[in-house]
Amino acid sequence: MRAALTTKDNTMVVTEVPDPVPLDGQLLVRTLACGICGSDLHALADPEAFMETARRSGGTPYDPRDGLVFGHEFAAEIVEYGPGTRRELPVGTVVCGPPIGIGPQGAGIVGYAPMFPGGYGEYMILNEGLTMAVPNGLDPRVAALTEPFSVATRAVDRSGIGADDVAVVLGLGPIGLGVVAALTARGHGPVLAVDFSARRRALAAGLGADEVIDPAVASPYDRWADLDVPVGTVDRMAAELLGVPARGAVIFECVGVPGVLRQVIEGAPAGATVMVVGVCMQSDRIEPGVAVTKELTLRGTFGAYPAEYGATLHAIAEGRIDAGSIITGTVGLDGVAGAFADLARPEEHAKIVVVP
Amino acid sequence: MRAALTTKDNTMVVTEVPDPVPLDGQLLVRTLACGICGSDLHALADPEAFMETARRSGGTPYDPRDGLVFGHEFAAEIVEYGPGTRRELPVGTVVCGPPIGIGPQGAGIVGYAPMFPGGYGEYMILNEGLTMAVPNGLDPRVAALTEPFSVATRAVDRSGIGADDVAVVLGLGPIGLGVVAALTARGHGPVLAVDFSARRRALAAGLGADEVIDPAVASPYDRWADLDVPVGTVDRMAAELLGVPARGAVIFECVGVPGVLRQVIEGAPAGATVMVVGVCMQSDRIEPGVAVTKELTLRGTFGAYPAEYGATLHAIAEGRIDAGSIITGTVGLDGVAGAFADLARPEEHAKIVVVP
Repeated sequence: MRAALTTKDNTMVVTEVPDPVPLDGQLLVRTLACGICGSDLHALADPEAFMETARRSGGTPYDPRDGLVFGHEFAAEIVEYGPGTRRELPVGTVVCGPPIGIGPQGAGIVGYAPMFPGGYGEYMILNEGLTMAVPNGLDPRVAALTEPFSVATRAVDRSGIGADDVAVVLGLGPIGLGVVAALTARGHGPVLAVDFSARRRALAAGLGADEVIDPAVASPYDRWADLDVPVGTVDRMAAELLGVPARGAVIFECVGVPGVLRQVIEGAPAGATVMVVGVCMQSDRIEPGVAVTKELTLRGTFGAYPAEYGATLHAIAEGRIDAGSIITGTVGLDGVAGAFADLARPEEHAKIVVVP
Repeated sequence: MRAALTTKDNTMVVTEVPDPVPLDGQLLVRTLACGICGSDLHALADPEAFMETARRSGGTPYDPRDGLVFGHEFAAEIVEYGPGTRRELPVGTVVCGPPIGIGPQGAGIVGYAPMFPGGYGEYMILNEGLTMAVPNGLDPRVAALTEPFSVATRAVDRSGIGADDVAVVLGLGPIGLGVVAALTARGHGPVLAVDFSARRRALAAGLGADEVIDPAVASPYDRWADLDVPVGTVDRMAAELLGVPARGAVIFECVGVPGVLRQVIEGAPAGATVMVVGVCMQSDRIEPGVAVTKELTLRGTFGAYPAEYGATLHAIAEGRIDAGSIITGTVGLDGVAGAFADLARPEEHAKIVVVP
């Protein structure tokens, strides 16, 4: 099949690679659409940091320089079933699913592990048990975006955000926009969305953010008093002792570059939860004493479980989340390398989808 | 009254200071015992870092070099009531309480705010509403330790530790020992207690730790496989998908010096909660990407609420927590400065109590 294969000089080349073969419990699918994820950009640009993070997180590191087919945000149609499958969905059904590969070849992430080539190739193999039919005739390009939106949904689920809490979303790339959408889809407010890019702020407003903030002009951390959120631990405790539980805040850190976490810890009010969704693969400097004294909770979130993926797919298919609104471009396989370069310019792009 | 007063050259001198005067809702008490807390040592040794952390956490910074009476782990007897008090406890009653000062002078921490001199002085003023009678004829030296044990209890409460989770306690100073005690008092196991000091490990064993580890000899992070805790995110997810929810872990970081948090993030298994109880006032370096990829939760905890303090007081008075076992020395006011120096040698000391 044709695929965009990563190369030893940190780029991708479209070439012929062997067709993947479905083993026990797996099916062969033809890729219809695959979103380009920021993680792919980082993995290609800095393979050492990518592998180091995987290794130190208890995962198996794979080297993009050895030639991998990336792409873990996919929709596809069923071509044929492997052995030992129940075959409940007819061949030709449009499907998607979380990028979890399990099989006789071992387990790994589809689009990173070499035994599970991803959606920047014409064919993939998926686990039957993790493959879901795309409902309501949803456009495969939109269905493919279930993956990043499910990551955002998981981040909101794991935040334990209270009904009255202020939500602040830092960084309006696809995951940040997904967090805005997940919050507004469940009627949460207020949601403050923060990004330097006017285009991305406009996308957030379209997804229902109550307020968009350009951090070059104003700080989201100046808003606590207006929003009745006490900043200090003693003030917060005093409010609770007086029987008026203080309003809290959840900050979604969807930027993932060095220095942001430190600013968040500095700017967060006492008792806040900081959902760390952006994956900063570099070393970073923080002041733990400030986080402790404010009783902050910093919680990482990574990927999504099948149940979260399925719930997100239905929220998209039923129109509660307008996932298609973040698509700013479509390319073929030959355009993937160029799209990687384009995505470095946030003013122009949010999500580019590959249609092999 | 006589008090150990902090000085501008980072030490303490015993001197005469004005007696505090109880205002509306307050009472005057005579200090019977006061524990020396590691925070006091840090505040005296590095006042700039101490004030900087307070300032950046939304609190009011007070400068130890201006002369403060430290001491926030106290038991005392009631001397007289101020105006506007209910006077439910007779004069002479032995009392204790969380070190929260609220009054016409403003709010602040007893033993740090200048309007609320602490237990390294002969007299203190307390809020009537936060003052609790010491039950069961408990020794005031032991009652004084309710404060650090209540901080530990709050840390365990806020951890959300599950019945099957492995608990690892790093650093067996008074707070770490308190965490061990809070865990074993509620029947939790296994509890792994880690410290370089043999004496402190012995204290932890006495408080019911299932296993003590000398990190110079073995790493607590080598135990996950033995204890059936999956290390990687994919392994953890795979276990849950197979319907066998994976065993988790809670790590209590009670050390609070630079470098420890990074080791914890490195050593923690996927999905773990890290309760950050040690207050590291220096800047520290971590790799957020590793914490995110493992879906770690890092949660700060600071002080304790009155309800937590009261519950801890009763657990101590009823013998469920042997708080007295951690006392390794008693000094008078003249011995406070020397005790500060002694506490820098962990092999010899855990908690020294001042009896003014």
